[in-house]
Amino acid sequence: MFDKKEYIKRQIAKTNKKDYENYVVTRIIHLIDDLEIKFVTQQYVKRPGGKRALADLYFPQIHYFVEVDEMQHLSNEDADKKRDADFVSMVGKEPERIDVATTSIEEIHNRIDQVVAEIKALIQKERDNNTFEPWDPAKEMNPLTWIEKGHVSVKDNVAFRITVDACKAFGLDYLGFQQAQAKHPHEENTGIWFPKLYDNKEWANSFDETTGVIRSSCKKGGEQQKNHVENRLSDPIKRRLIFARVKDNLGDVKYRFRGVFELDIENTNYENGVVWNRVSEVAKTYDYRSSN
Amino acid sequence: MFDKKEYIKRQIAKTNKKDYENYVVTRIIHLIDDLEIKFVTQQYVKRPGGKRALADLYFPQIHYFVEVDEMQHLSNEDADKKRDADFVSMVGKEPERIDVATTSIEEIHNRIDQVVAEIKALIQKERDNNTFEPWDPAKEMNPLTWIEKGHVSVKDNVAFRITVDACKAFGLDYLGFQQAQAKHPHEENTGIWFPKLYDNKEWANSFDETTGVIRSSCKKGGEQQKNHVENRLSDPIKRRLIFARVKDNLGDVKYRFRGVFELDIENTNYENGVVWNRVSEVAKTYDYRSSN
Repeated sequence: MFDKKEYIKRQIAKTNKKDYENYVVTRIIHLIDDLEIKFVTQQYVKRPGGKRALADLYFPQIHYFVEVDEMQHLSNEDADKKRDADFVSMVGKEPERIDVATTSIEEIHNRIDQVVAEIKALIQKERDNNTFEPWDPAKEMNPLTWIEKGHVSVKDNVAFRITVDACKAFGLDYLGFQQAQAKHPHEENTGIWFPKLYDNKEWANSFDETTGVIRSSCKKGGEQQKNHVENRLSDPIKRRLIFARVKDNLGDVKYRFRGVFELDIENTNYENGVVWNRVSEVAKTYDYRSSN
Repeated sequence: MFDKKEYIKRQIAKTNKKDYENYVVTRIIHLIDDLEIKFVTQQYVKRPGGKRALADLYFPQIHYFVEVDEMQHLSNEDADKKRDADFVSMVGKEPERIDVATTSIEEIHNRIDQVVAEIKALIQKERDNNTFEPWDPAKEMNPLTWIEKGHVSVKDNVAFRITVDACKAFGLDYLGFQQAQAKHPHEENTGIWFPKLYDNKEWANSFDETTGVIRSSCKKGGEQQKNHVENRLSDPIKRRLIFARVKDNLGDVKYRFRGVFELDIENTNYENGVVWNRVSEVAKTYDYRSSN
């Protein structure tokens, strides 16, 4: 989705889960009135400690969260249903809360004015420091953006719409690529992997953002789990750039960069399954056009 | 409903019939940013010529209409279903149209900025002329407001929540009043009437806003229609202040002032039914407290 107009419509259309949520969210967006600032509504987040929740409004460029009244915390059951969702980590600053239940309309407006002023100040700071990246839907998921930048990083919220685009960012131009993994063309014994990092039909997979540990087991167990573990241990590819397959809040599939991982040979066994440790949150990019 | 906060929420909640409607309406409201300006979303209107339509946004204080793309014109069937709705007349100025289908988000913003500037200028003009009545939900349907003003008028969009309140505005304080008509306590041979001015189960009623003519026939015909006509002709009350029973866009019943009417003795007969002609759009008010 490369069009801000369509993106904005779809985001705003989701803001109806709480009383006044649509009113508050649209007021913030319209008063900020800046098409270079991206926003996401109904963003799934992981709170510190691992609790999952749903934030009403999220500004990824400044990692700023807004909640209308209390943030909705997901029960285990809800979180289970949403395990393929594109969760972002809420680190550092607490979300800004806007109380609408016990306050007058004038107080709500004053509180929103505060929040808007704070968001504008944070953006201005980034602009003054030349660290602000204006929102550009055509660029943010284009591999050339990241090739020009020289690297992808977890901090930059890198995601691609299709695995082909992720591969291109590392110099691999396979037009019809559709597998869950590829061999890195420029780095030795390195793969590019597009796993579901959550419990799914075939795989008991998990990813702990805090420790940076991925675990993967074959649900069938027995021979299959044995093969899974042995294949990884015998495979010369012990290093992987990992893009997790997620669904964003609009229901679109994306491949979200999670970092560079190395196989944990000591801990990988039948009981633990295959274990990967994150060794870097940044990966070098390569131009796929020069490799032709 | 005397609370702006609740009112605004309910109005905004209705803006989802068209793509971008909620986005456009909330942008206009938030950029105007003035709680003294009342707005109505999804307002039923009668266009010049009698065609009925649904306007996306209406500012009653300046009689200003906004449509997002084309205004939705009601088919006869739709209009039939909505015959108890609180239609307002769209006279003079055409509605302001905001094209969202063929324009970029920047063009939509520019167009909205124009509309907002125009609305602000119209309000400012009223303020400069001391003709601006700030929106006050607690006052607008309170009979004391109109008693202090000295009159009610069609132009001022007068409506009451209950018939008791309408009666109070003419000096009649019956706590439990619930009939469709009352005798005016201060003006001779005058009644206060609260009819359904649309075709309903018992009555073939109609009101033509342009000519100011009300027609009323008993659907049962025969003896009942004969009695209906004869009762009116023999009744000394030949003059009526008329408040039409309507449902506003939030589904709340209201009694909307339509003017002062006199029985058209010449045209009232079995075939035509009872005919009333509007003789004034203004009626004097009386304090119900002083009559005790």
